[in-house]
Amino acid sequence: MLLLSCPDQPGVVAHVADFIWRNGGNIVTAEQHTDHIDGLFFQRVEFTLDGFAVERNEIAEAFAPIAERFLMHVRVHFSDERPRLAILASKSAHCLVDLLARSAAGELRADIALIASNHADHADLAAFHGIDFHHLPVGDDPPAQDRAMTALLQSERIDRVVLARYMRILSPDFVDTFPNRIINIHHSFLPAFVGAKPYRQASERGVKLIGATAHYVTADLDQGPIIDQDVTRVSHRDDVEALARRGRDLEVIVLARAVEADLENRVLVWGHRTIVFH
Amino acid sequence: MLLLSCPDQPGVVAHVADFIWRNGGNIVTAEQHTDHIDGLFFQRVEFTLDGFAVERNEIAEAFAPIAERFLMHVRVHFSDERPRLAILASKSAHCLVDLLARSAAGELRADIALIASNHADHADLAAFHGIDFHHLPVGDDPPAQDRAMTALLQSERIDRVVLARYMRILSPDFVDTFPNRIINIHHSFLPAFVGAKPYRQASERGVKLIGATAHYVTADLDQGPIIDQDVTRVSHRDDVEALARRGRDLEVIVLARAVEADLENRVLVWGHRTIVFH
Amino acid sequence: MLLLSCPDQPGVVAHVADFIWRNGGNIVTAEQHTDHIDGLFFQRVEFTLDGFAVERNEIAEAFAPIAERFLMHVRVHFSDERPRLAILASKSAHCLVDLLARSAAGELRADIALIASNHADHADLAAFHGIDFHHLPVGDDPPAQDRAMTALLQSERIDRVVLARYMRILSPDFVDTFPNRIINIHHSFLPAFVGAKPYRQASERGVKLIGATAHYVTADLDQGPIIDQDVTRVSHRDDVEALARRGRDLEVIVLARAVEADLENRVLVWGHRTIVFH
Amino acid sequence: MLLLSCPDQPGVVAHVADFIWRNGGNIVTAEQHTDHIDGLFFQRVEFTLDGFAVERNEIAEAFAPIAERFLMHVRVHFSDERPRLAILASKSAHCLVDLLARSAAGELRADIALIASNHADHADLAAFHGIDFHHLPVGDDPPAQDRAMTALLQSERIDRVVLARYMRILSPDFVDTFPNRIINIHHSFLPAFVGAKPYRQASERGVKLIGATAHYVTADLDQGPIIDQDVTRVSHRDDVEALARRGRDLEVIVLARAVEADLENRVLVWGHRTIVFH
Repeated sequence: MLLLSCPDQPGVVAHVADFIWRNGGNIVTAEQHTDHIDGLFFQRVEFTLDGFAVERNEIAEAFAPIAERFLMHVRVHFSDERPRLAILASKSAHCLVDLLARSAAGELRADIALIASNHADHADLAAFHGIDFHHLPVGDDPPAQDRAMTALLQSERIDRVVLARYMRILSPDFVDTFPNRIINIHHSFLPAFVGAKPYRQASERGVKLIGATAHYVTADLDQGPIIDQDVTRVSHRDDVEALARRGRDLEVIVLARAVEADLENRVLVWGHRTIVFH
Repeated sequence: MLLLSCPDQPGVVAHVADFIWRNGGNIVTAEQHTDHIDGLFFQRVEFTLDGFAVERNEIAEAFAPIAERFLMHVRVHFSDERPRLAILASKSAHCLVDLLARSAAGELRADIALIASNHADHADLAAFHGIDFHHLPVGDDPPAQDRAMTALLQSERIDRVVLARYMRILSPDFVDTFPNRIINIHHSFLPAFVGAKPYRQASERGVKLIGATAHYVTADLDQGPIIDQDVTRVSHRDDVEALARRGRDLEVIVLARAVEADLENRVLVWGHRTIVFH
Repeated sequence: MLLLSCPDQPGVVAHVADFIWRNGGNIVTAEQHTDHIDGLFFQRVEFTLDGFAVERNEIAEAFAPIAERFLMHVRVHFSDERPRLAILASKSAHCLVDLLARSAAGELRADIALIASNHADHADLAAFHGIDFHHLPVGDDPPAQDRAMTALLQSERIDRVVLARYMRILSPDFVDTFPNRIINIHHSFLPAFVGAKPYRQASERGVKLIGATAHYVTADLDQGPIIDQDVTRVSHRDDVEALARRGRDLEVIVLARAVEADLENRVLVWGHRTIVFH
Repeated sequence: MLLLSCPDQPGVVAHVADFIWRNGGNIVTAEQHTDHIDGLFFQRVEFTLDGFAVERNEIAEAFAPIAERFLMHVRVHFSDERPRLAILASKSAHCLVDLLARSAAGELRADIALIASNHADHADLAAFHGIDFHHLPVGDDPPAQDRAMTALLQSERIDRVVLARYMRILSPDFVDTFPNRIINIHHSFLPAFVGAKPYRQASERGVKLIGATAHYVTADLDQGPIIDQDVTRVSHRDDVEALARRGRDLEVIVLARAVEADLENRVLVWGHRTIVFH
């Protein structure tokens, strides 16, 4: 699979398609997007490797002349890749339980390498699923915990980090270690209700819908590129606790969809926005 | 129909129901809400007047002892009331066309007394529907236009004002003349994207849903009590113009639902929030 | 809490409210519905028992004169009741995992007394949650398995049965043993695609939305009173397997909402329809 | 713009893209779909004609060698084409009003050539928009009316027919005259509630969502290829009239989206299903 972006110009699609066809591949899915304001072209092309004339580890090199000609930024992925994923959680279990169930059902294109938390609560759940659990309490030294978490993820060669209601603000160093590789679920329809206690904010504002937003984590809190969002209808009857309860169902599904899109290499980050192909 | 609010305490429902039953009414619908934080009780009771022992213009007085005992704020309405409604619009026609069509189909419990605009565009449409049209251009003196509009609505004894994409900021005097009687449609999911050009803001933030919000107008711009909201899914493919086009369908439906709820006296304003009964 | 239905007539609300007020109760929530075609009145009244003049086990008797006068059918419930619930599942785990997670989070007003299945797959999951698991294979004698399941549920004094993708058709005897006490999740938007393989049927018909329906089980397959339904958007890109995968997320949430409504005694069955209060 | 379908095989994308690039076109949008069960490939390619080496009326011929090689079925369209559209309506105005408003706002890529009805109601509305109105009453001879309508549409060289709540069943001859060129809005979520009075059927079944379906008309009533569908939540409070009222808002938006997709040549019919590109 090729994920590419380049300045928009005639011939890009023709050359990419020709490369695949000449080497004996058949395009399974192809999606493209042109941003007319910035003059940029984006494409995701998935093709068969069965009988492909180029070995999989030589595809990038073989494609390099085309990439150079069109000034492309290219990523090459394979549908059988299984990145090592770490799930970070705090007290709440709902997103964690859901991701583990999806993994157990074979729905996630990743190996969950570890679960880590600032609390000890989920050790049994991790054990039930046969996944390593790391308890890194915050204690008196939050920066030390943050450094320890970063070090753990590095030493375990983690490719992607999912914050499944992990209620810690990550340090810039942590974030920089995994650029566009950390997915967070925020319990509001961003950019409404950034920061803490969004359900309380929503209740006080009297909104008629509450939302959840999955986004890549950047150094700017709650400002990262949005991958997916959804909302559900609420009413005056719903107090803060009821909003939180209804919100949990949203958080679960929005985070799951975002993680799946990311793992299937359907997301291209472009500035602080995303292109999410189907 | 009684719309009431009072401190929450035992006996309120019993006394209201007893008043209706003793006088020979049958309760058609009744909805109530208790706010446990502020200790307030809200109720909307709709009952038959056929054979009711109290004349309709004496109901408020007959009910006064109960209202006083429970420190109630009470509104009495009748389902055959037809408030005089003014629609204010600017260039865009979509919300105006929709409201006129609903009125023509007999779906609005109101008489559209007039259409007014800072532009002349909708004169023919108003004429087609047999409704007076007032063109009040802004010219060099915006405050004068605002005063003229307020005066027009007062002299025409307008009960409710609908801002159907009327792109003027109302003066505090205008707003104070119609407290909780002006409904606006804002083209975003408030409180996200307050102020001007919300679709541009939404495009730049890269959100995956856009929204529309109908609210009562208060002196604080875009901060009034929300009556209804809705969203629709968008993607990277939608530029600002596409967002605006998709948003128009949202604006139409959200404004219509809010106007209907208001005209059916299903909305209670409470602080800067609303209770919307079914 | 009182759940009642009776012929519609003046005075019902007044007498019910008076009963509660005279005995020192305060109404927390009250919802009512009048069916004007059949002339029936339905009400759910939740009130405080703290300081109530009637003992909880004597409320039904104390209320009997009112019930008789208005020919009411009455159910009395208490918010601290915890019915004994059995979950029946087959191979698929998603609905079962979700209900167990909700129970573990304290969100279900019930005790999960047992999990039973025609397969052995979920024994470990049940053990992790400390819940008895019963494996009742179908083998050569399906009616015998059905009878064994009925007997198990009776001997365990089960109050409600949730079919969490239990892929067996229940015998009339089974169904009659738990009238309006068995909740099933059907993986389509009923009445579209009754029967087997609804995702395949949906794919062949080329629908643009797929749905899920939670309903009480009656002797007529897929015809029981609907408690909740929801849909999600699909497209030509989604083959049968993709529909099934997307549908699972729907099944989970629709079943959970229906079970919660049922356990909170918010559902009244009326003919083959339901009234679901909030 | 090229809309094509052919047996799935390597090289199709490459040859199409090469044809466009060699002749100096730039691909603006391209979407494709492969049906793996039937082994079919579908593509919609929109490209710039500015400076294109082939005249627009010669594109089909120039492309013919590729089409023949890959056994393609090809349609060539231009974004400035404006097909002649006829809207057929009966008593209800809501869908008609909406389509006329969209046309007036410049949102439809078509010229509304005429409005025709079995009733006289909408003559003034048509006149207001400056569109010819034809009243073809049914009277004693329904087949004659059907033939007269078919003849009218043919003599006016109509390209597409929109049934905007036209409550007549079309004859097979009528349907065959406009294959996949007649769009109907059915007021249910098909295949639930085919036939007459779907809101009554929905009320009797006690569904919790009602829907609307836009589809191409075929000789089999309510069985044509579905273009778009949507639903809205209802409850026990909504009687048949309330369902109909809420349903009208659905009908308007679903029909509009289907008509827009059709006019933008984003719909490919394949068997009794559709592929709707974005």
